[in-house]
Amino acid sequence: MKIGILGATGAVGRQMLECIEERNIEADEIRLLASARSAGRTMKYKGEELVIQEANEHSFEGLDYVLGAVSNAFSKQFLPYIKASGAVYIDNSSAFRLEDDVPLVVPEINGEDALKHHGVIANPNCSTIITMMAVAPIARISPITKITATTFQAVSGAGIGGLQELNAQVSAIHEGREVTASVFPQQIAFNCIAEIGSYNDNGYTTEEMKMQNEGRKILHLPDLKVTCTCVRVPVYRSHSISASVVTETKVTPDQARQAIAAAEGTKLVEDHVPSPLETSNQDIVYVGRIREDLCEENGLALWCCGDQIRKGAAANAVQIMEYLLSH
Amino acid sequence: MKIGILGATGAVGRQMLECIEERNIEADEIRLLASARSAGRTMKYKGEELVIQEANEHSFEGLDYVLGAVSNAFSKQFLPYIKASGAVYIDNSSAFRLEDDVPLVVPEINGEDALKHHGVIANPNCSTIITMMAVAPIARISPITKITATTFQAVSGAGIGGLQELNAQVSAIHEGREVTASVFPQQIAFNCIAEIGSYNDNGYTTEEMKMQNEGRKILHLPDLKVTCTCVRVPVYRSHSISASVVTETKVTPDQARQAIAAAEGTKLVEDHVPSPLETSNQDIVYVGRIREDLCEENGLALWCCGDQIRKGAAANAVQIMEYLLSH
Repeated sequence: MKIGILGATGAVGRQMLECIEERNIEADEIRLLASARSAGRTMKYKGEELVIQEANEHSFEGLDYVLGAVSNAFSKQFLPYIKASGAVYIDNSSAFRLEDDVPLVVPEINGEDALKHHGVIANPNCSTIITMMAVAPIARISPITKITATTFQAVSGAGIGGLQELNAQVSAIHEGREVTASVFPQQIAFNCIAEIGSYNDNGYTTEEMKMQNEGRKILHLPDLKVTCTCVRVPVYRSHSISASVVTETKVTPDQARQAIAAAEGTKLVEDHVPSPLETSNQDIVYVGRIREDLCEENGLALWCCGDQIRKGAAANAVQIMEYLLSH
Repeated sequence: MKIGILGATGAVGRQMLECIEERNIEADEIRLLASARSAGRTMKYKGEELVIQEANEHSFEGLDYVLGAVSNAFSKQFLPYIKASGAVYIDNSSAFRLEDDVPLVVPEINGEDALKHHGVIANPNCSTIITMMAVAPIARISPITKITATTFQAVSGAGIGGLQELNAQVSAIHEGREVTASVFPQQIAFNCIAEIGSYNDNGYTTEEMKMQNEGRKILHLPDLKVTCTCVRVPVYRSHSISASVVTETKVTPDQARQAIAAAEGTKLVEDHVPSPLETSNQDIVYVGRIREDLCEENGLALWCCGDQIRKGAAANAVQIMEYLLSH
């Protein structure tokens, strides 16, 4: 059992290594792959120092699984070599998510789709995973036809650079220095930016369209309609989503609560309102504020939060690998 | 022309005084009224120091207008004395907003309602004013039937104490000290709290229901349905709202853009995404991200931001007074 992590030094890659250790996955080898810049540096795993190697066409030989945490461009670049090695590629980029022969998997929702892979399994978008975890228990009672979602996305969704930029801006403001922005299009400290990704012709961003396009595939609801607004907020970690969900037939708030409480990977929170701070650094999606939608007869409104580096990315990818190992 | 400000020392009261000065409203007297604690202190107005007086039953004699920036309880307590004085009371509390004989006014939308007052005019809720400013130009093309809104509310919406709590928490985190929360139910620094106000039986908060109840009255749309989720974010000033709007007949994004660009008090922003930071300390509501809703045939999605202490409270109250003066 040999596992490679491609892009091991980024926020998601580091978290993948931590998740493998935490979840006690037995591996004969963990191969950390990154750019030439990081080669030779080490990362801690079970008390040992693993040496990072430069990723190249020969890096994947002998591996059983490769967990990818690189850009779409790098993912496409390395795919032929991963395929040639015979390893299964579990990819966190969006490069292959909508391809017909690539399963797009959240194990608690559509784990069985992973078994139909042809060498590549895609890990969905972070906000999409967290939202789908919250609404899938409702969809199992009655199919969802529409979702209106507004996201509150943490800066670490933009990687370690996003975290650093928020910290640098808060310090600059604290010390009366000028604030500069490079990772985000505007100042994010003490601000909100309703723009994540680039724009499609329909006025939605690429990030916003993922909720509909990926949601359809994960929930097996090809006609699902989603209106999404993605907003960056000055939170370090964990995304939150305010969602209105319309189902084919009426689902009461109590039915939704019971389903969410019983579902694997979600936690129903009723004694307080779940927050991104509270859900940071763990793998469960917290769901609260479940109530009837006031606009739609068959509608429910809810609020959910989850750590987007863990369940929204690294943990979900590791769980896909676990699912394959156990099936 | 004599104007009283009841609750002159709070965030909204202070801003009312600034707005009166900025807008060059000619007044023979500005009477600053507050609790006994503040009596004797002074506030600057046109280069002079005005002395704050303790509000009591005799405080309103001789006034033409009283601008109220106090709690519902204090507003109710002082109303009989204000009425007895003959002054018109423009009240920022929610105490009288839904009463049949009390106009609820945003001057750019339903200014003419103010003329039908019986001594009291109510200033709407802050998020409601900002949202209605953005959607009223659309409603003038075709009546709005449904709004799904998620708010991003600045800490100063909870008054000066909210600002101080965010600052204290950021400093505590910066210096590695323990974070304490008293104004907000949880830590607000680097967090989001989807809970503003107390809960109604339907699971919505009082703050959330204002968008529907007050929106109906302002837009003259008694059947308007609004599903609202109100969220506190670590922003100092200016509320933002992500809204989906459904109209009786189709309104295209271009029609909405033209209407918003032409409307008084709103600014259409298309070259970037408006932010709470950018809209702080001014009176205009900025609207951007206008696009077709993907769930509703006759739907539009948009994002708007406005300073909730100014247009969402103080400036709107002063504008109501100006409207009465000029009509």
